[in-house]
Amino acid sequence: MTETRSVAVEREIPHPPEKIWRALTQPHLIEEWLMKNDFNPVVGHQFNLRGDWGGVLDCEVLAIEPNKALSYTWNFAHDDAAYNLKSVVTFTLTPTSSGTLLRMEQSGFRPDQKQAFGGAQAGWQKFFANLEQVLARTD
Amino acid sequence: MTETRSVAVEREIPHPPEKIWRALTQPHLIEEWLMKNDFNPVVGHQFNLRGDWGGVLDCEVLAIEPNKALSYTWNFAHDDAAYNLKSVVTFTLTPTSSGTLLRMEQSGFRPDQKQAFGGAQAGWQKFFANLEQVLARTD
Repeated sequence: MTETRSVAVEREIPHPPEKIWRALTQPHLIEEWLMKNDFNPVVGHQFNLRGDWGGVLDCEVLAIEPNKALSYTWNFAHDDAAYNLKSVVTFTLTPTSSGTLLRMEQSGFRPDQKQAFGGAQAGWQKFFANLEQVLARTD
Repeated sequence: MTETRSVAVEREIPHPPEKIWRALTQPHLIEEWLMKNDFNPVVGHQFNLRGDWGGVLDCEVLAIEPNKALSYTWNFAHDDAAYNLKSVVTFTLTPTSSGTLLRMEQSGFRPDQKQAFGGAQAGWQKFFANLEQVLARTD
């Protein structure tokens, strides 16, 4: 058994869960804050997240609870073990008096994957900032 | 023989070639406008460019002419041929009366790699915008 680490980001967002859910599950909105994709909100659906620089992640939808929770794999295949990532991203949405508490946890970083772990910490800050901008300018 | 396409971006930048060369070849500066990396300006040096989301590119320095030209491979290994990219990035710097004409060409996109090609077109616009910001705030 290998111990793994998680990156978690949690933010209070002044929009209802239904609106955030759309941004998390509609491909054209996902593209705006995360990456190009062929996401489909169906358990077992396999999809890719594609970076503008030619890289691609292999993903599969694991769990969906509309407006409440979404989970998918976030895998990156590479010959070098330090870069070969098998992780799971889980979003949970909790309604609050003023909007939604959105939590993201990415689990599965092995202790020898410090660079990927540090990258994810920085990356999710950017992705969340992008997401809040998308939410601010959409209905 | 397979026909391939290139993405090219060319900009007049109000900084001398020597300054732009540093931003293209010093790892801590490359990280600011492109990606995390272990670049070293030595022909044959193999390095990685690493995205914040866990992805990584495999690169090798092909040619260096200080303050004038830099070329390296920009490869991405993937089982799906549409994503398996073998490309070469070449920067050329030409002094002008007010600064430098910087040209980047990324060659090697096969006709079936429309997504990677489109991504690179968008990506290099962003990378160049980042680069100009880095140049504006450094000596």
